[in-house]
Amino acid sequence: MLVLEDFPSYRTIEDMNSDRRDFLKQSLLAGAALAIKPSDLFSQATTTISNNMELRFYPYTLELKHTFTIATSSRTTTPTMMVEVERDGIIGYGEASMPPYLGESQETAKVFLSKVNLKRYELFFSLEVILKDIDAIAMGNHAAKAAVDIALHDWIGKKMGYAWYQIWGLTPDKTPVTSFTIGIDTKEVVRTKVKEADIYKVLKVKLGRENDKEMIETIREVTDKPIRVDVNQGWKDKTQALNMIEWLATKGIEFVEQPMPKDQIDDLVWLKEKSPLPIVGDESITRLSDVRNAYGVYDGVNVKLMKCTGMREAHKMITLAKALEMKVMLGCMTETSCAISAATQLSPMADWVDLDGAVLIKNDLFKGATIVDGKMVMPKGPGIGVTKI
Amino acid sequence: MLVLEDFPSYRTIEDMNSDRRDFLKQSLLAGAALAIKPSDLFSQATTTISNNMELRFYPYTLELKHTFTIATSSRTTTPTMMVEVERDGIIGYGEASMPPYLGESQETAKVFLSKVNLKRYELFFSLEVILKDIDAIAMGNHAAKAAVDIALHDWIGKKMGYAWYQIWGLTPDKTPVTSFTIGIDTKEVVRTKVKEADIYKVLKVKLGRENDKEMIETIREVTDKPIRVDVNQGWKDKTQALNMIEWLATKGIEFVEQPMPKDQIDDLVWLKEKSPLPIVGDESITRLSDVRNAYGVYDGVNVKLMKCTGMREAHKMITLAKALEMKVMLGCMTETSCAISAATQLSPMADWVDLDGAVLIKNDLFKGATIVDGKMVMPKGPGIGVTKI
Repeated sequence: MLVLEDFPSYRTIEDMNSDRRDFLKQSLLAGAALAIKPSDLFSQATTTISNNMELRFYPYTLELKHTFTIATSSRTTTPTMMVEVERDGIIGYGEASMPPYLGESQETAKVFLSKVNLKRYELFFSLEVILKDIDAIAMGNHAAKAAVDIALHDWIGKKMGYAWYQIWGLTPDKTPVTSFTIGIDTKEVVRTKVKEADIYKVLKVKLGRENDKEMIETIREVTDKPIRVDVNQGWKDKTQALNMIEWLATKGIEFVEQPMPKDQIDDLVWLKEKSPLPIVGDESITRLSDVRNAYGVYDGVNVKLMKCTGMREAHKMITLAKALEMKVMLGCMTETSCAISAATQLSPMADWVDLDGAVLIKNDLFKGATIVDGKMVMPKGPGIGVTKI
Repeated sequence: MLVLEDFPSYRTIEDMNSDRRDFLKQSLLAGAALAIKPSDLFSQATTTISNNMELRFYPYTLELKHTFTIATSSRTTTPTMMVEVERDGIIGYGEASMPPYLGESQETAKVFLSKVNLKRYELFFSLEVILKDIDAIAMGNHAAKAAVDIALHDWIGKKMGYAWYQIWGLTPDKTPVTSFTIGIDTKEVVRTKVKEADIYKVLKVKLGRENDKEMIETIREVTDKPIRVDVNQGWKDKTQALNMIEWLATKGIEFVEQPMPKDQIDDLVWLKEKSPLPIVGDESITRLSDVRNAYGVYDGVNVKLMKCTGMREAHKMITLAKALEMKVMLGCMTETSCAISAATQLSPMADWVDLDGAVLIKNDLFKGATIVDGKMVMPKGPGIGVTKI
């Protein structure tokens, strides 16, 4: 645990003033002093000494525009916990979106967040240590952890005056097109949804029930846009899965997400070898160690902030997947523009994104990333780039 | 290639002024305006439009304090090329250290650096794209590429007003102890060097000749400090290598670096399985893809800025190695405090560091990272934290 007392000799305010004088003197010698505003230098060190980071949270229920059905469940709302951290007059925003099937709730998030004590930390930029400590508070609670991670990243980015895509060295116009998700539904509703998805260049379709072919054929009656298929572990037999994928490969499908149950590893390896379409792991992929285990089993991984504990771990997962020459999809839950904007910061690193979460809700709380002509547009503010509505 | 013309619609100065007004209005609504200095916001965007990044370089020859002998060569100087980038009155410093056996020279660096045109770029924080472009200019030239990478990181850090350890979220007092390297030499010289290394908590010894046991025994006559062994591919027979490692394991040795030639993969796998000491890859490890290939062959990897093209790729290599549960050593060539300070920014992520490169030379050009009681001390300025002497 990193506590204030761990830094007895690291910095006093006198040290820092002296550091700053030394640095300015040195900069002057190096001819750089005119360009760097003295007030910018070590502003973290000089201001974090007061050690008064506040953490606040409140429950919020997202209302979905349409009843949402996947292979295993159906719902009209998503419970969330909104998080704010505040220090030096800067507020960092975070969000935990908790679809019930993932096991978290507003109650569990409240219990978890009550145990997070940010006042213990002096060096707020030391996120590697801070987030490791927070991760160690309790098992699970991935969405609650992500809420704190996002809020701290937002705060640090605002403190620095830069957006995370800049801090990470990414190019903002390299955001991919995002898919719009069509749930399992009647022919009529599916047709309506496809029409609603007019601005999207790519559709994502939830399969894994009896009417899979009918779903695809219904969509193909009204559009020839590329389709990404998400089976949510719905197919149990590898031969049937392969037959279906071979059929899908003739229908303009980009890839198939989680075709079979995540514990049927041998079947998934068999399927990956034979599949004409890329196979992407979703339910198999939670955190960093899952990316390593996905190597050889899947062609790509679906990374979601709410499952992986936030932006920092997601950035590592994507770095790892890329190093292993795997494809990366960046996904989401139904979320406000807060968590969607956080994910959008990472999106120039992804091959595919599915960040339509905020479009699917009626009561967004934030303004941030937008979707223009089906493409994610990076928000322009510092941190995660959101403002409260 | 990312050129200015690729951003026709991304940002004009009018857009940016308008962005800033919008952002300030939104911040005001969010109650955050007082804390964020307006001048900090989008300072990248407003100032990079002038597109006038200068790149300068000059040759410099490092004079070594002692003739340096490893298994394959011996020398008294190291040629380098020093690099500076300048824009907005901020200078970023970089360095290419080029021990001759790695195949680069001041001539090759000059040819390579003459082809780098930083004026093409508008968004200077988009290092992922910029460094990919630079990497694609020519094969090899890893040290020359590292020099540009380090200079750009230094510039960006100074522009942001933060050091890279802060930007990466690392804790500055987590820097490991560094080893001090003892080359292959006569008993008398070895004894002198061990005494010179008084402040170091760990020694690194170059083995791989006939007198390996004598070297260790000579050192053990004068000190019982932990020793790291670097064989530089010097042992050719796996059984002899294992015998030697088993003997070393009784002599207080921490790990063995590159015991056998890097292309003897099967022998190395055999050795790793049986070795009582961790085996670290060095000559085998150049860039990111080598870390993946090292998995199962070595217990750890030695990452060096001059081999891997710089700070950005090194950060990815360490992230990957950690995700693969491998140990990480951060090494160096003989270098000035410029490149050593750049590596020190990453050092809180490493298990072991060997960053004594600047201590081994007589004519350092920079003030930056220092070694206090054998431990790397993070320099305190922004960027890579160096000032020119």
